[in-house]
Amino acid sequence: MRAIDIIAKKRDKGELSRQEIDFFVQGYANGEIPDYQAAAWTMAVLLNGMTAQETTDLTLAIVASGETIDLTQVVPVAVDKHSTGGVGDKTTLVVEPLVSACGLPVGKMSGRGLGFTGGTLDKMESIPGFNVELTTEAFLSQIKDVGLVLAGQTANLAPADGKLYALRDVTATVDSVPLIASSIMSKKIAGGAHGIVLDVKSGLGAFMETLQEARELAALMVDIARLAGRKAVALLSDMNQPLGHAVGNALEVKEAIATLHGGGPADFKGHCLEVAAHMLTLGGVAENVEAAAPILDEALEKGLAWQRFRELVIAQGGDVSYVDDPNLLPKASLIESVPAPRSGYLEGIHAREIGEAAVILGAGRAKKADPIDHAVGVEVHHKVGDYVEEGQALFTIHANDQAKLAEARPRLLDAHTFSDDPVEPLPLFYGVIW
Amino acid sequence: MRAIDIIAKKRDKGELSRQEIDFFVQGYANGEIPDYQAAAWTMAVLLNGMTAQETTDLTLAIVASGETIDLTQVVPVAVDKHSTGGVGDKTTLVVEPLVSACGLPVGKMSGRGLGFTGGTLDKMESIPGFNVELTTEAFLSQIKDVGLVLAGQTANLAPADGKLYALRDVTATVDSVPLIASSIMSKKIAGGAHGIVLDVKSGLGAFMETLQEARELAALMVDIARLAGRKAVALLSDMNQPLGHAVGNALEVKEAIATLHGGGPADFKGHCLEVAAHMLTLGGVAENVEAAAPILDEALEKGLAWQRFRELVIAQGGDVSYVDDPNLLPKASLIESVPAPRSGYLEGIHAREIGEAAVILGAGRAKKADPIDHAVGVEVHHKVGDYVEEGQALFTIHANDQAKLAEARPRLLDAHTFSDDPVEPLPLFYGVIW
Repeated sequence: MRAIDIIAKKRDKGELSRQEIDFFVQGYANGEIPDYQAAAWTMAVLLNGMTAQETTDLTLAIVASGETIDLTQVVPVAVDKHSTGGVGDKTTLVVEPLVSACGLPVGKMSGRGLGFTGGTLDKMESIPGFNVELTTEAFLSQIKDVGLVLAGQTANLAPADGKLYALRDVTATVDSVPLIASSIMSKKIAGGAHGIVLDVKSGLGAFMETLQEARELAALMVDIARLAGRKAVALLSDMNQPLGHAVGNALEVKEAIATLHGGGPADFKGHCLEVAAHMLTLGGVAENVEAAAPILDEALEKGLAWQRFRELVIAQGGDVSYVDDPNLLPKASLIESVPAPRSGYLEGIHAREIGEAAVILGAGRAKKADPIDHAVGVEVHHKVGDYVEEGQALFTIHANDQAKLAEARPRLLDAHTFSDDPVEPLPLFYGVIW
Repeated sequence: MRAIDIIAKKRDKGELSRQEIDFFVQGYANGEIPDYQAAAWTMAVLLNGMTAQETTDLTLAIVASGETIDLTQVVPVAVDKHSTGGVGDKTTLVVEPLVSACGLPVGKMSGRGLGFTGGTLDKMESIPGFNVELTTEAFLSQIKDVGLVLAGQTANLAPADGKLYALRDVTATVDSVPLIASSIMSKKIAGGAHGIVLDVKSGLGAFMETLQEARELAALMVDIARLAGRKAVALLSDMNQPLGHAVGNALEVKEAIATLHGGGPADFKGHCLEVAAHMLTLGGVAENVEAAAPILDEALEKGLAWQRFRELVIAQGGDVSYVDDPNLLPKASLIESVPAPRSGYLEGIHAREIGEAAVILGAGRAKKADPIDHAVGVEVHHKVGDYVEEGQALFTIHANDQAKLAEARPRLLDAHTFSDDPVEPLPLFYGVIW
């Protein structure tokens, strides 16, 4: 078998066999196939596409390039969730304690934020002492003992994905649905998930701007799961406006805590309950999402989800007094409430612009190695469809630098658009694919 | 400007500007743009194509990557020819002395054979002492003094082409019409040609198997010439059966010499006269191809073309006694005439199979560094459409190794197919594009 023949076959719109894909991924991972051959191949894949079977074979070949984690030692069925990323998406912080409190132990490996989207690890590190770097052994024993872990990647999972992604990043081959799908699914499968709830976001603040692209990606990931002997459900969720109100690390932790106490913004809470219901269903705790609803409500109302979150913080070395009293969490020195420049119905709150403004303030990273400021961020006080009076607080900026505040303010104002006529609220979801 | 944006633009079917193409080619030539980015880009070019303007800009950017030769010091107008390669194609050996004898000085840089096609330099090196490695100074002064040169590349012409070709060769991106066209034209333009006769072959023994592909390549090269301020004419010629009878280096030199003496196979002679007529027309020696015909006939009949060939051999250090008596040229130890296995009309003489058989005998190279045997090869005695009696000599094998002869024989037999019904001869040409 030769790499050049596999490139030529994809160039000519052929369907690659599992043997060909294994050969190519293994050869690339171990350095026998050079970057330039992989670059020509990824461009051919981007332009000519891949079938669900090819994408599954690619996913499993990437899994085989590294270690895998066997969660069956510690949980009867391992259910994971994955969000394709958005602005204000602190869903994991609420959903994981919630489903764990309902009797489904979860161990989640999360990532850091890049660009206008945040990352779970950064948010949790707003809590002093919270340690996200666990060994695989510590990860497994904490799932068993506490029923909940939120950490970074513990083992050398899917190294071919990292190598391929770095190459795609510099060869204009990131935007390929099969390559995105196999990248996501390989890490979930290598991490030991049997069931996966995929939160596939579309809209102005998502990587997939159109619903059509999001549907395509969601359907392909669900197909991969099935062909790989896993179960998956994909929720098509809205990311035109930020999820909830808070954007920025400590601000989002506070909002998650409020939600775990039974409060929190209605849209965010609704989103979390839907994701959690699908996790309980995949995990066999509830027969279906309708049956899951009262179980989840009870776990929230009785404070079980909140208790589980506290246990998580303690187990990973976080100072629990900071979550017991969220006012102790990192706070910005400059807090400015910005009034609405006019009265009207909110027509749009451009999620990406809000996210970019948060990056300007220091809440996110432009480049991988950039430091972040946990205290800063933005609170948007309204949702699309709300009627706002001129002079009423529109959003609040949390900053530690006057110049950055001044740069973010007009951007945040421009992100809010108004209408004189009533505006329909945005839906939370556009569909479910399984 | 960033390489990744240029890759993305071509990925998205955009038309690249001259600035973008210059930036990319220059960056790749000087090593600032790595192989993997160039590989992704060439795959995007192969799959999404390029306009004639883009291909011209690419051609000129490749020219700018190295030295160029200015022939205006030594000739009023520099006319070159280029063949896309075939089996038995010794056209240069006849055409260049012929047009030179008609008053159009020519200096041609040729290449070596690879795979089933031969190369002019290898053929000329059948003549003991003939030196193909000239400096640019020697090249120029020989055009001036002798009116004819046949040498390898004398200067560092179009180095980006060599680098790009090596990359394309290992990334399945050779078969791209714009990339092939720019590769050919960049070397001709860097070599100083004002006018170029392109001999674009199609058929079983050509790189372009279909006439449609050949037309596309020919039209694009003619467009490039015009957009780059040069003149070009492309002849669409047949390469389903070998050109002439001889395939193999010394055998082809003998056939060329016979043709220069006014003999030679009719198809080969006709092909040479057509190419030469277009060269004289581009060079301003004749007003058109009809007017060129009697000039060429006279130069052949009076022996002027033959004399010019002798002068070439002498000027480049070859032993002229070998061309005066071609029986002195390298001769194989095993010469076997193979009879026709049946009577019938010749339906096909598969040019590529004949070429591959010649490679088996040692006349060509499978890999770049392989040595070649000047003596060996094949003489096919008939053309498609001829009626052959069973037992009549079909072809003659010239070999220096019994095992190779035994391997080539059945392949050569299979390359000849017969019909009971009359078969139309193959045309020499399928059209002219200018």
